[in-house]
Amino acid sequence: MEFLAAALAVGLGALGAGIGNGMIVSRTVESIARQPEARGQLQTTMFIGVGVVEVIPLAATLIAFLIFFGA
Amino acid sequence: MEFLAAALAVGLGALGAGIGNGMIVSRTVESIARQPEARGQLQTTMFIGVGVVEVIPLAATLIAFLIFFGA
Amino acid sequence: MEFLAAALAVGLGALGAGIGNGMIVSRTVESIARQPEARGQLQTTMFIGVGVVEVIPLAATLIAFLIFFGA
Amino acid sequence: MEFLAAALAVGLGALGAGIGNGMIVSRTVESIARQPEARGQLQTTMFIGVGVVEVIPLAATLIAFLIFFGA
Amino acid sequence: MEFLAAALAVGLGALGAGIGNGMIVSRTVESIARQPEARGQLQTTMFIGVGVVEVIPLAATLIAFLIFFGA
Amino acid sequence: MEFLAAALAVGLGALGAGIGNGMIVSRTVESIARQPEARGQLQTTMFIGVGVVEVIPLAATLIAFLIFFGA
Amino acid sequence: MEFLAAALAVGLGALGAGIGNGMIVSRTVESIARQPEARGQLQTTMFIGVGVVEVIPLAATLIAFLIFFGA
Amino acid sequence: MEFLAAALAVGLGALGAGIGNGMIVSRTVESIARQPEARGQLQTTMFIGVGVVEVIPLAATLIAFLIFFGA
Amino acid sequence: MEFLAAALAVGLGALGAGIGNGMIVSRTVESIARQPEARGQLQTTMFIGVGVVEVIPLAATLIAFLIFFGA
Amino acid sequence: MEFLAAALAVGLGALGAGIGNGMIVSRTVESIARQPEARGQLQTTMFIGVGVVEVIPLAATLIAFLIFFGA
Amino acid sequence: MEFLAAALAVGLGALGAGIGNGMIVSRTVESIARQPEARGQLQTTMFIGVGVVEVIPLAATLIAFLIFFGA
Amino acid sequence: MEFLAAALAVGLGALGAGIGNGMIVSRTVESIARQPEARGQLQTTMFIGVGVVEVIPLAATLIAFLIFFGA
Amino acid sequence: MEFLAAALAVGLGALGAGIGNGMIVSRTVESIARQPEARGQLQTTMFIGVGVVEVIPLAATLIAFLIFFGA
Amino acid sequence: MEFLAAALAVGLGALGAGIGNGMIVSRTVESIARQPEARGQLQTTMFIGVGVVEVIPLAATLIAFLIFFGA
Repeated sequence: MEFLAAALAVGLGALGAGIGNGMIVSRTVESIARQPEARGQLQTTMFIGVGVVEVIPLAATLIAFLIFFGA
Repeated sequence: MEFLAAALAVGLGALGAGIGNGMIVSRTVESIARQPEARGQLQTTMFIGVGVVEVIPLAATLIAFLIFFGA
Repeated sequence: MEFLAAALAVGLGALGAGIGNGMIVSRTVESIARQPEARGQLQTTMFIGVGVVEVIPLAATLIAFLIFFGA
Repeated sequence: MEFLAAALAVGLGALGAGIGNGMIVSRTVESIARQPEARGQLQTTMFIGVGVVEVIPLAATLIAFLIFFGA
Repeated sequence: MEFLAAALAVGLGALGAGIGNGMIVSRTVESIARQPEARGQLQTTMFIGVGVVEVIPLAATLIAFLIFFGA
Repeated sequence: MEFLAAALAVGLGALGAGIGNGMIVSRTVESIARQPEARGQLQTTMFIGVGVVEVIPLAATLIAFLIFFGA
Repeated sequence: MEFLAAALAVGLGALGAGIGNGMIVSRTVESIARQPEARGQLQTTMFIGVGVVEVIPLAATLIAFLIFFGA
Repeated sequence: MEFLAAALAVGLGALGAGIGNGMIVSRTVESIARQPEARGQLQTTMFIGVGVVEVIPLAATLIAFLIFFGA
Repeated sequence: MEFLAAALAVGLGALGAGIGNGMIVSRTVESIARQPEARGQLQTTMFIGVGVVEVIPLAATLIAFLIFFGA
Repeated sequence: MEFLAAALAVGLGALGAGIGNGMIVSRTVESIARQPEARGQLQTTMFIGVGVVEVIPLAATLIAFLIFFGA
Repeated sequence: MEFLAAALAVGLGALGAGIGNGMIVSRTVESIARQPEARGQLQTTMFIGVGVVEVIPLAATLIAFLIFFGA
Repeated sequence: MEFLAAALAVGLGALGAGIGNGMIVSRTVESIARQPEARGQLQTTMFIGVGVVEVIPLAATLIAFLIFFGA
Repeated sequence: MEFLAAALAVGLGALGAGIGNGMIVSRTVESIARQPEARGQLQTTMFIGVGVVEVIPLAATLIAFLIFFGA
Repeated sequence: MEFLAAALAVGLGALGAGIGNGMIVSRTVESIARQPEARGQLQTTMFIGVGVVEVIPLAATLIAFLIFFGA
């Protein structure tokens, strides 16, 4: 049951990170193509967003490793 | 069963955070590209929104850690 | 079974808060970018909405903590 | 089984409140940005709608607390 | 099993009320912003709709309380 | 098992009534805002539709009460 | 098991009736607002459609009552 | 188990009839409002479509009655 | 188990027939309203499509009757 | 279990055939209404598509009959 | 269990073939109606796509027959 | 259980291949109808995409055959 | 249980690869049809994207083979 | 149960990577076709996004291999 828990944690985390980062980065690429001179500002905002989205899936991955090695 | 609970908590939290932050940050990036002079106001509003969205998933992560180490 | 209940409560709460706050804040950011002079009114309305949306997930988190420590 | 029932009640309530209030407040913010002079009327209507939407999730939260402390 | 039934009744009721009232009130707010002079008529129609939508979730909440106290 | 059946009946009924009435009333409010002089005709049609939609959820609620008190 | 069957029959019937009638009546209200002089023809068509949609959910309700009283 | 089968048959039939007839009749009402002089032809086509859609749900209802009385 | 199989066969068949015929007939009604002079050709094509869609659900209904009477 | 397998095979086949043929025929009807002089070519292409879509559901129906009579 | 496996294989294959071929052929019919002179090229491309989509469902059907006759 | 695994592998593979190839080929047909002179380049790109999409479902089919004959 | 695991791994991988590659290649084909002179750059970007998407499903296929032959 | 966990981890990871990378790369290809001179900036942003999205699915694949070889 421990392995299933680790797999579920990291799997749902990967799904969440894929949806969140996919929306942010794809919209950023589109905005840079529309206004290339604002590239710096847009990438800065993108990095903040990506960092915020990645916090919870990384914690999920950490918990999965903890479950795996601590079990 | 404890490990499964921790995995479910942090996994659903990651999904929720990904959807919420993805909507907020992608829309912010698009708005900055449309009106670069309003970058400060938009980022301030974005930080408030991101902070509000992250509260519950962080609590979910905290509970997951509590379940893991307290079990 | 108590841990699973706590995880489900806080996980569904995180999902609900992510969807609700994501809609409100992303639409607010877009509206500020369209009319920067109405920033005060829009943020006030946003805070009311965010506060209203957060009530139930916070209660869910509280119940999760109660289940965890009271179990 | 009581804890699971409390978690399900407050979790579904949070989901319902997030969807309902998210639609109402986000549309209100957009309407205020379009017609700032009608802010009073729009906020009054928003408060009525938010109050109506919150009735059932609050009852769900109340039932969850009743299940938790009465169990 | 009684607690689970009460939770399911009030939870599905909250979901239904959130979707229904969210559609009605958000559309009403948008219509008032478009034609502020028709506010009275629109709010009257909104109250009728909200009242109609709330009947079944309130009955669900009532049944949930009946299950809880009658069990 | 009887309580679960009553909860399921009234819960699905609330979901169906919320979706159906939400579509009808929100579209009626929008139509009145577009043509205020046709308010009478539109409300009459709305009442017919709401009445038709409510028949089955009310029967579901009735069956739920019957299950509850007859069990 | 009989009660669960009755609840499922009337619940799915309410869901189907809500979706079907919601589409028909909301579209009729919108069409009357666009062409008020064709109200008679539109309402006649609406009544036919509503009657056709309601046949199966009413049979579902009838079967639910039969299951309830015949069990 | 027989009652559950009857409920499932008539419930899925009601869902299918609601979706199918809802699409046909709502589109017919909209078309009559756009071209009132073609009402006859449109209603004839609608009756054919409604009749075709209703065949399988009616058979489902018939089977449900057969299961109920033949069990 | 035989009754459940018959119910599932005819129920899924009704769902498939409802979706398929609903798309075909509603689009046909819209096309006749746009070009009334091509009614013959459109109805011929519609009858072919409806006949093709109905083959499998009718076989499902036949199998359901076979299961019912042959069990 | 054999009856359930036959029902599932023909039910999923009916769903797949309904979705596939519904898309093809409804789009063909719309195209004929837009260019009535190309009716022959469009119907030929439609027949090829319908034939291709029907192959697998017919095999599903055949397998269902084989399961039924061979069981 | 063998019959259920055969039914699931051919059922999911029919669903996949219906969705894939439905998208390809409906888009081809629409394109021929828009440019009738390019019918040859479009049909050639359509046949390639239909052939590619059909490979896996046909293998699924083959496996279903193998399971059926080899069991 | 082996037969169920083989059916699930080839069934999910057929679903994935249907969705992926359906999107690619339908969009290619539409693009050829818009620019017939670029047919060569578009078909080359389509063949690459179709080949890439088919790799995993073919592996799924291979695994299904391996499970079937190796079991 | 090993065969089911292998089937699930390769099946979900095929679904993910179908959705991801389908979006990338179909959009690339559309872009080449709009700007044929940028074919080289677009195909290079497409190959990078396809390679990135295929990494995880190929690993899933590898794991499936490992489970199959190592079991 | 270990094999099922490994399959679930890598399968959900493949699904998440497919959705996330599919959105990013397809939008990048479209943007390059619209502004070929900004290819360098867009590809740089795309590589960052793809790298961020791939982190969690790669961790999922790693965990799957760990479960497989460590079990």
